[in-house]
Amino acid sequence: MRKTTSEELGMQPKQFRELVRRAEWTDYTMNVCRNYAQFNLAIVPKDYAFDFFHFCQRNPRPCPIVDVTEPGSPHPKLVAPNADLRTDLPRYRVFIDGELIDEPTDVTRYWSDDLVGFLIGCGITVGWALKAANVDYRSLGAYVSSIPCAVAGPFGGPMVVSGRAFKGSRDAVRATQVASRYLASHGPPIHIGDPAAIGVDITKPSVSYDQLPRPEDVLLWWGCGITPQYTAVAAKMPILITHKGGYMLVSDVLAEELANL
Amino acid sequence: MRKTTSEELGMQPKQFRELVRRAEWTDYTMNVCRNYAQFNLAIVPKDYAFDFFHFCQRNPRPCPIVDVTEPGSPHPKLVAPNADLRTDLPRYRVFIDGELIDEPTDVTRYWSDDLVGFLIGCGITVGWALKAANVDYRSLGAYVSSIPCAVAGPFGGPMVVSGRAFKGSRDAVRATQVASRYLASHGPPIHIGDPAAIGVDITKPSVSYDQLPRPEDVLLWWGCGITPQYTAVAAKMPILITHKGGYMLVSDVLAEELANL
Repeated sequence: MRKTTSEELGMQPKQFRELVRRAEWTDYTMNVCRNYAQFNLAIVPKDYAFDFFHFCQRNPRPCPIVDVTEPGSPHPKLVAPNADLRTDLPRYRVFIDGELIDEPTDVTRYWSDDLVGFLIGCGITVGWALKAANVDYRSLGAYVSSIPCAVAGPFGGPMVVSGRAFKGSRDAVRATQVASRYLASHGPPIHIGDPAAIGVDITKPSVSYDQLPRPEDVLLWWGCGITPQYTAVAAKMPILITHKGGYMLVSDVLAEELANL
Repeated sequence: MRKTTSEELGMQPKQFRELVRRAEWTDYTMNVCRNYAQFNLAIVPKDYAFDFFHFCQRNPRPCPIVDVTEPGSPHPKLVAPNADLRTDLPRYRVFIDGELIDEPTDVTRYWSDDLVGFLIGCGITVGWALKAANVDYRSLGAYVSSIPCAVAGPFGGPMVVSGRAFKGSRDAVRATQVASRYLASHGPPIHIGDPAAIGVDITKPSVSYDQLPRPEDVLLWWGCGITPQYTAVAAKMPILITHKGGYMLVSDVLAEELANL
């Protein structure tokens, strides 16, 4: 793995995706092309595309859809028309009948004209916006909650949530305001306070684990972009291709361009 | 046609829809159940449902999707689970291969398990919000503009827009702020000022016609919910069922519940 350099932080998304395409970048995307929106990816067979679309529409907090490809096309027209979803993410996960079979850096060999790509908003944008507003927080990681998603066709199951801990009400209120500007990045929190109320035990990581809150912290919980991947795996489709967590698509669109206010 | 009474204005949406279902209300819905969100309707065959969904996702200003039914179900789960889309709108339009064949008050005989209903936001909400904010305006009606919609499958064509004239910049700015709270009701304007710049001649009505602006007015133009019907007719599907303009679905959801802020 290469270390992020300041040049890479400042490069344009197109240049960065070319690095990825040539397999010269295989690391996380967290710190690259700051301020350009990054997205979660789910590629599903055309036969499932309407139901998956429907699932995301019914669950807009965890699954804000930002772009959907033409069936068979790997190019996300709205957010990165020159990108290729088969090669331009640093790491993928491939599932057959719900079983993980591969974690490649290129999914060209799994591609077919029958596939539809969905790009779904990602919370990194809100993290940047909070920092820009000088609102400090501790990341609590992601957990499978007890909140049921609205069902559509074979897609359903629990909402995955991610938490942030703020040092007081003032910061938590400001964070709610800031996040509300970014509906494409999960928007406002879906829960304030006690994690047990939404079935989360912060001492037992279920998806990913980060810091623990301090007793005086105010906790906010957001719908998490792992949710669509979680439900899509459970649907045991003949094929499902996703990004691997943290290895996102870096788009051509500034996060601010997607802000609803 | 019956005159709206104050009782009817104040009745609950469920009671109002029962009146409609019994064909005891066949008038416009403009003034009924004030503050409850009303929606545009497009019912399309399942084979076209993904592409139509995709079209709306790509054109969120004219086509904000609020609810999509399960294929074959006439019940809009999110906004009015007890409503029946076959009977609960006062007037429909039925198109076969793009030709208008009927304008009934009930479409039960055209229904099949192959159909999917899309409910799309409606500008009435913003009209109410402007009045609540004491922002006066003149309605300019709806026009087919020269702005091309983003294409998805067989769906494309021009955006239909609707205009409002404000008596000065202060009101126009306030109106932009107010409308931005309601993404499900077309959100902020898509054009400010000269109608000719978007191919609109306000002296020549193309869809509907209302008042003319005064020379000192500031004009704002919004994506209009007639757009999805316009594109759906042009796609010449084997069957398409829509509401007739002005005869909307009255939902159980307050417009304020859908506000994004």
